[in-house]
Amino acid sequence: MFYHVQSLINPIVLDEPDPSAANALQEGLGGQFGEMRTMMQYLFQSFNFRGDAAPYRDLIQSVGIEEISHVELISKTISQLLDGAPGYKGNKFETPGKGGKPVMDMAKEQKNAHHFIVGAQGSLPVDAAGNPWNGSWVHDHGNLVLNLMDNLVLEATGRLQKCRIYEMSSNKTLRATVSFLIVRDEAHQAAFAKALETLGVDWNKALPIPKFDATKFPEVKRLLDAGIHREQYTFRLDGSEMEKIFSGSAPMNDGTDLVTLKEPKEAFPIPLAPERPEEFAPGLDPELQELADALSEFKKNLANPKKVSVVKKKSRKV
Amino acid sequence: MFYHVQSLINPIVLDEPDPSAANALQEGLGGQFGEMRTMMQYLFQSFNFRGDAAPYRDLIQSVGIEEISHVELISKTISQLLDGAPGYKGNKFETPGKGGKPVMDMAKEQKNAHHFIVGAQGSLPVDAAGNPWNGSWVHDHGNLVLNLMDNLVLEATGRLQKCRIYEMSSNKTLRATVSFLIVRDEAHQAAFAKALETLGVDWNKALPIPKFDATKFPEVKRLLDAGIHREQYTFRLDGSEMEKIFSGSAPMNDGTDLVTLKEPKEAFPIPLAPERPEEFAPGLDPELQELADALSEFKKNLANPKKVSVVKKKSRKV
Amino acid sequence: MFYHVQSLINPIVLDEPDPSAANALQEGLGGQFGEMRTMMQYLFQSFNFRGDAAPYRDLIQSVGIEEISHVELISKTISQLLDGAPGYKGNKFETPGKGGKPVMDMAKEQKNAHHFIVGAQGSLPVDAAGNPWNGSWVHDHGNLVLNLMDNLVLEATGRLQKCRIYEMSSNKTLRATVSFLIVRDEAHQAAFAKALETLGVDWNKALPIPKFDATKFPEVKRLLDAGIHREQYTFRLDGSEMEKIFSGSAPMNDGTDLVTLKEPKEAFPIPLAPERPEEFAPGLDPELQELADALSEFKKNLANPKKVSVVKKKSRKV
Amino acid sequence: MFYHVQSLINPIVLDEPDPSAANALQEGLGGQFGEMRTMMQYLFQSFNFRGDAAPYRDLIQSVGIEEISHVELISKTISQLLDGAPGYKGNKFETPGKGGKPVMDMAKEQKNAHHFIVGAQGSLPVDAAGNPWNGSWVHDHGNLVLNLMDNLVLEATGRLQKCRIYEMSSNKTLRATVSFLIVRDEAHQAAFAKALETLGVDWNKALPIPKFDATKFPEVKRLLDAGIHREQYTFRLDGSEMEKIFSGSAPMNDGTDLVTLKEPKEAFPIPLAPERPEEFAPGLDPELQELADALSEFKKNLANPKKVSVVKKKSRKV
Amino acid sequence: MFYHVQSLINPIVLDEPDPSAANALQEGLGGQFGEMRTMMQYLFQSFNFRGDAAPYRDLIQSVGIEEISHVELISKTISQLLDGAPGYKGNKFETPGKGGKPVMDMAKEQKNAHHFIVGAQGSLPVDAAGNPWNGSWVHDHGNLVLNLMDNLVLEATGRLQKCRIYEMSSNKTLRATVSFLIVRDEAHQAAFAKALETLGVDWNKALPIPKFDATKFPEVKRLLDAGIHREQYTFRLDGSEMEKIFSGSAPMNDGTDLVTLKEPKEAFPIPLAPERPEEFAPGLDPELQELADALSEFKKNLANPKKVSVVKKKSRKV
Amino acid sequence: MFYHVQSLINPIVLDEPDPSAANALQEGLGGQFGEMRTMMQYLFQSFNFRGDAAPYRDLIQSVGIEEISHVELISKTISQLLDGAPGYKGNKFETPGKGGKPVMDMAKEQKNAHHFIVGAQGSLPVDAAGNPWNGSWVHDHGNLVLNLMDNLVLEATGRLQKCRIYEMSSNKTLRATVSFLIVRDEAHQAAFAKALETLGVDWNKALPIPKFDATKFPEVKRLLDAGIHREQYTFRLDGSEMEKIFSGSAPMNDGTDLVTLKEPKEAFPIPLAPERPEEFAPGLDPELQELADALSEFKKNLANPKKVSVVKKKSRKV
Repeated sequence: MFYHVQSLINPIVLDEPDPSAANALQEGLGGQFGEMRTMMQYLFQSFNFRGDAAPYRDLIQSVGIEEISHVELISKTISQLLDGAPGYKGNKFETPGKGGKPVMDMAKEQKNAHHFIVGAQGSLPVDAAGNPWNGSWVHDHGNLVLNLMDNLVLEATGRLQKCRIYEMSSNKTLRATVSFLIVRDEAHQAAFAKALETLGVDWNKALPIPKFDATKFPEVKRLLDAGIHREQYTFRLDGSEMEKIFSGSAPMNDGTDLVTLKEPKEAFPIPLAPERPEEFAPGLDPELQELADALSEFKKNLANPKKVSVVKKKSRKV
Repeated sequence: MFYHVQSLINPIVLDEPDPSAANALQEGLGGQFGEMRTMMQYLFQSFNFRGDAAPYRDLIQSVGIEEISHVELISKTISQLLDGAPGYKGNKFETPGKGGKPVMDMAKEQKNAHHFIVGAQGSLPVDAAGNPWNGSWVHDHGNLVLNLMDNLVLEATGRLQKCRIYEMSSNKTLRATVSFLIVRDEAHQAAFAKALETLGVDWNKALPIPKFDATKFPEVKRLLDAGIHREQYTFRLDGSEMEKIFSGSAPMNDGTDLVTLKEPKEAFPIPLAPERPEEFAPGLDPELQELADALSEFKKNLANPKKVSVVKKKSRKV
Repeated sequence: MFYHVQSLINPIVLDEPDPSAANALQEGLGGQFGEMRTMMQYLFQSFNFRGDAAPYRDLIQSVGIEEISHVELISKTISQLLDGAPGYKGNKFETPGKGGKPVMDMAKEQKNAHHFIVGAQGSLPVDAAGNPWNGSWVHDHGNLVLNLMDNLVLEATGRLQKCRIYEMSSNKTLRATVSFLIVRDEAHQAAFAKALETLGVDWNKALPIPKFDATKFPEVKRLLDAGIHREQYTFRLDGSEMEKIFSGSAPMNDGTDLVTLKEPKEAFPIPLAPERPEEFAPGLDPELQELADALSEFKKNLANPKKVSVVKKKSRKV
Repeated sequence: MFYHVQSLINPIVLDEPDPSAANALQEGLGGQFGEMRTMMQYLFQSFNFRGDAAPYRDLIQSVGIEEISHVELISKTISQLLDGAPGYKGNKFETPGKGGKPVMDMAKEQKNAHHFIVGAQGSLPVDAAGNPWNGSWVHDHGNLVLNLMDNLVLEATGRLQKCRIYEMSSNKTLRATVSFLIVRDEAHQAAFAKALETLGVDWNKALPIPKFDATKFPEVKRLLDAGIHREQYTFRLDGSEMEKIFSGSAPMNDGTDLVTLKEPKEAFPIPLAPERPEEFAPGLDPELQELADALSEFKKNLANPKKVSVVKKKSRKV
Repeated sequence: MFYHVQSLINPIVLDEPDPSAANALQEGLGGQFGEMRTMMQYLFQSFNFRGDAAPYRDLIQSVGIEEISHVELISKTISQLLDGAPGYKGNKFETPGKGGKPVMDMAKEQKNAHHFIVGAQGSLPVDAAGNPWNGSWVHDHGNLVLNLMDNLVLEATGRLQKCRIYEMSSNKTLRATVSFLIVRDEAHQAAFAKALETLGVDWNKALPIPKFDATKFPEVKRLLDAGIHREQYTFRLDGSEMEKIFSGSAPMNDGTDLVTLKEPKEAFPIPLAPERPEEFAPGLDPELQELADALSEFKKNLANPKKVSVVKKKSRKV
Repeated sequence: MFYHVQSLINPIVLDEPDPSAANALQEGLGGQFGEMRTMMQYLFQSFNFRGDAAPYRDLIQSVGIEEISHVELISKTISQLLDGAPGYKGNKFETPGKGGKPVMDMAKEQKNAHHFIVGAQGSLPVDAAGNPWNGSWVHDHGNLVLNLMDNLVLEATGRLQKCRIYEMSSNKTLRATVSFLIVRDEAHQAAFAKALETLGVDWNKALPIPKFDATKFPEVKRLLDAGIHREQYTFRLDGSEMEKIFSGSAPMNDGTDLVTLKEPKEAFPIPLAPERPEEFAPGLDPELQELADALSEFKKNLANPKKVSVVKKKSRKV
């Protein structure tokens, strides 16, 4: 059974909208090696798990639970990168189209017109080429050694693709999220590689994939310095046997050690997404809005909704 | 951010394996109107939510979180229904194939051979016709009224299909899960219909869909008597505004009232799935098993793993 | 702009339900070479037609319009073949599930469970392997000679597959429809082959595909004797130039002549489909039914709805 | 059985080519909520209709027939918007490529290269992201209330997406078609909402979706003023019971009334599409053209083919 | 550039037709981890190979070339398993349908009706659930270590699935081919694992996947005894650097050694497939046959075509 | 059984990178009418071939074998057109991202971001709209006349689309490959049209498709002058009966004659693809590179790897 808190696993850093960057990041969400797949693959493997080797099941499932929070994080990041129809800065209840003006004129030139026609400048369950996510990508072979190797390939590909996306834009909103995922994908490589190490494999210097000095990416370096690439979280409210695997020396054989925690040391607020009247989102006209307001007392706490999206003070720099 | 407990939202009731029933139930998992879609649709809608009408976002998201637990429940049910190659009752480490005997001879005649070739007698992210789940089925229009109506159609279709599946088998494993989902899909219809009611719609006697006397299904009746069709859970560790919508009279206009709870009143153990040596699942041979056992002390607690799958005492009858 | 009459292009002949035959016939509806494709392919080709060679456009479009009526015919045939859950003969408003009995127990063993879970024993836009129809199958190359050849291949494949389906069942409902389509696909081969003949190609004895003595199929023979394989209809309310192509000797070079007509010489009643309470179709409970009846005076004309499905007297034997 | 007239349901208004606008409009044709789906969904629902509630069947089918004409209209509009390879104004029989010059150099930069490589600057059965249309999007649940609600959601989404597309371009060719569809999608919302009203639902002020003052779109306003959003056509040559539902006050509860007509009050000419030699469309070289001309006397009526595409006089302004 | 000889890489062993076995074997041909994917994945990786590490490129490509021959072998095996419509043993030119008899009555009950409707009892590019092969399954990450690991996972899954298929039937036609593929997939695991070993990984006892005593499958044992699991072939007419990797001790660390050869030591005849008149395959009627015979002198060598399909004497037992 | 030589069937001509041209060319590789389909379609048809008409099987298969070499050629051409991230000219082992610089900033604006995120600037098994290749496009009807006609349509469409792509760019790398394919697709049209001619069809002046003076494309003219459009190769190491069909006058009826050869008169070197450090391709860091170099002596022959990609002297001009 699953639970939720209204917090993000990494902060949304504000910068200018960039629909092309949003489109590239879709690969990390709905692509064949994106977070929707990692989430579903690990959940299916843990739900279908056979035998009594609980530490392996708990390890796979813990990563799967984290991936739901990654889907949440990427989704919010894409939404932030898309926000605001190019060339349009309307207010709520302002007339859509402003009497016929093509206020979303530039939208049809963007990489995936679905971000504007189908969704309301929000994330979609598709990849960077616009293909919908496909269930055939979820692999659960039933065989433990094979599943662990498949998962390692999946995390390696995830990290490889995100390193490439990092190099495609200097947008801070994009990079904050992508850098976090690069670091977490290394932690997840460590998780599956370590599990294979318990079954005899010695990785020597082959990991992580890709093999390069990731501290050259400044945003990544800050997270590496904080050790986030060597932590794994159980996200379990009732105990877990994962630590039996995820502890001791990292399988990268670089002198670092693995640490199992219940949850990340920090959590971050989820910024409110402003209304987009040109998208009819949420599209409550004054009559309907009055009905909605009547049941919600929540609005009085929102004198300045923009402020909510400012990240609270914390020790880790972003 | 998401969390997990190792419990099921409804018990797995034991009965004979029935691969055809397992295949029919795949529609409820990976079908166009199954739980993988409801889960992703509501999560995307809540992650992309625009505006400050928090009670609506919290309502949509609460159902989305519950659907992850439904995916878990159906996945376990399908695995239980498939368990054991027809005609084969092997022990662990027994020779696969028994010196060339076709121990899974009947498997190739089953509805979806992938249950035996691709998976190891476990659930798959596909529908009852073997088609993989497709991301295009996830709808997030951005427009609140439209999203609520789309969600209502989705829950109505889910309940309709599960009522049909109920009539296809008297297998107790199948019916326990399907009956629970029929009842929860009615609760979810109530959630989205009630939200539309707050925006002015009066449903009169049109709901729920399908409209019939569901107490004629005995397993469903027990759950209706327990009022489970009028509860909704927040699954939130940090508070929720959902109750502002989900309370008062049910939109079915049948004299019942809606109740918001933090979580279901009961949780149920997750049965261990036995090894299937003919599937090489998990496939640890003695050498590898020894390595796995060395790190796990967990086995000593499992003198009789079969016992774990017995459902603990509880007040609600299943 | 399109119009409709509530008549079928060929009669539905009654026989026993046969879900496997229904599934095979799906290939003719939603398969890669089925009627949904022929309809969309010819309509797209005629809508996108370039240049002033109107007789070719009118010929292509006339076949396209006919294909909509073929979709209608196959759809009704499949529905007829599926009608009635195996083992269940319920009455309207009878309790679905009959107090928990698995009245559709055999349904989950049928070829495509979607016929019973997703649809209510009606046709689906899928092929005989359960794959959904796909837009990539629609070919409009823009080039006239190529389009005509592609269309000829399409009709040849349609006829080939239907000849194979004919051999798979002696069910009269299936064979009446399949035989009609075998004959019409030959007419359509004639249409496109004749158009290519006007551009210089001589087919000699290569057509039709497949090449065999079709009079050995008795139901086909009756239609051939009536000359239905050498007629083509314009289905145009405002004139057509098709006859400039579709007249004179058939391109099969067998001594027959082509005849252009406005519409088929006969039309046939559309049988009413009975309610299926176990499918909740249409699922109007007494309260809703009363509302529906209040607005419809139509029921009084239906003392015996079964009778409506009896085919009216006509000269052509089926 | 279906019939056709060579007329459009709304005029094609001439403006400059705009391939990006053409691509956006593909969503309205081959998208998940586009006209190909509405057409197939309503036709399947009416062909598979169970029970004797003929007015509901006739209503659903009438909208389905209209959608075929919408497919025709959008197809022609897209073709018009694409017409002419960017940078190329060739004459018929002029040498393709002009001795090696890249006369379609800009084509490979357009949103969907298939418009130029696969089709000959004509419409395709795909959405605005280039994904082919998929049969799984066609919903026929068999249950009447559910089908009506699903159809309402479909029309609401169609109108929402078209309102967004309207805002993406001021191209007159695009806007004439999109505005017409916005208005017709409102009529279709009225049709399905009214049918649900006969079964007890009261929509109060929730409709239409999206809820906004559509008269702010000038092209839409002209059609609203003409009342086209409150008409529905039977397109039946042999009578229909639709009017039993589609009459009286609109379910939008805005004081307007619904009107059932046999067909639209006006019809419009279908403009000829000029040849595109650089696409080899239709690609008849002089030898083949001579053969084609020999059988067609039609050309002498086309002294000035451009003139044919001028819209005839009519009372409604476009 | 590629070349061909008309020989098979393993013999077709004759046994009774078994359409269900044929369907299961489709997973090995058109499944996500079947030979069509291995072939395309390794060819793409070798065509796109970057850098100067030729031995790795040659190794990957050699396996890719072998996979084309595996596609050939599985295709022939499936055709052999399907051959002959159940219940029908017609002669050439015999009347299809035998005057209306449903000579393929059982065909519509088989696992994939496409084998009989779409193909003429031959192999299809689909998996065992009837889903068409999909290009997204081809992985070429560009990164050498990752590609090698992905390939190892692919071969491991291929071998796992084939071991499961082996257990599903004792049909000799099926088992001869499946056993050969089990052994070759182990050789290919050795190839990619050895390449990773050259980059530092030590596999200890984790390989092959699945880990079990494969000599318990008698047909497999004969091939293992012949050492075919430790050979790899270059299939290169102009030299290869593969042997620099594929030599020395096997990465399974079981005391065996790897051997690089130009090609397999034996080749086997390709059996002629008999005509299937009920499928209209090849469908040459007497007129067309006469034309075909006129150009072919080949028939006189075929007094008894059945004989050609008998496997010639050879040292390795099958 | 298949073999390979490390040579190309046509030379790669060097020019500037052009990612849009690369994307357009993807249609010729992974499109519905591209080389992946022709290759698989002809191989399946020849593997599944029924009957004893060996010359037809050999003809179909010979074209299929050639198509593998076309896949190889297009793959290399696309890789060449993509090579080098826009704006980046890094050296091996240079820091990816150069300390955080977005060195692939322009990549996210290219037509298919997958070329840079998923692949490492190499070809993909997708079409020009980014859709993955689909197995349903492979047609093997079993019927010989129909298969030949289908193949002719396929080659005609391939040539049509490549003629359009030719007109989209003057890039020499693109045009060298596209022109070769235009000419070969004409040879393949000749092959299938001639086979139909042996069965009675007379094509008169309808072929080739498209019908125009292809000598107006200068690169095509050079190949036509060399007669490459009238040659077909057996690619068989053990004899073929293809020449019985492919000889005598061309079915285009233009006075030319068909010539059967064992293989093309010339072969061309395969250029090495340079490393792309920003893609981590192949991504061997100094530690791993040292291991790879240790086993390869091949590098010493590569003083200047650029030189290898220069096309060797030959008589035919490109």
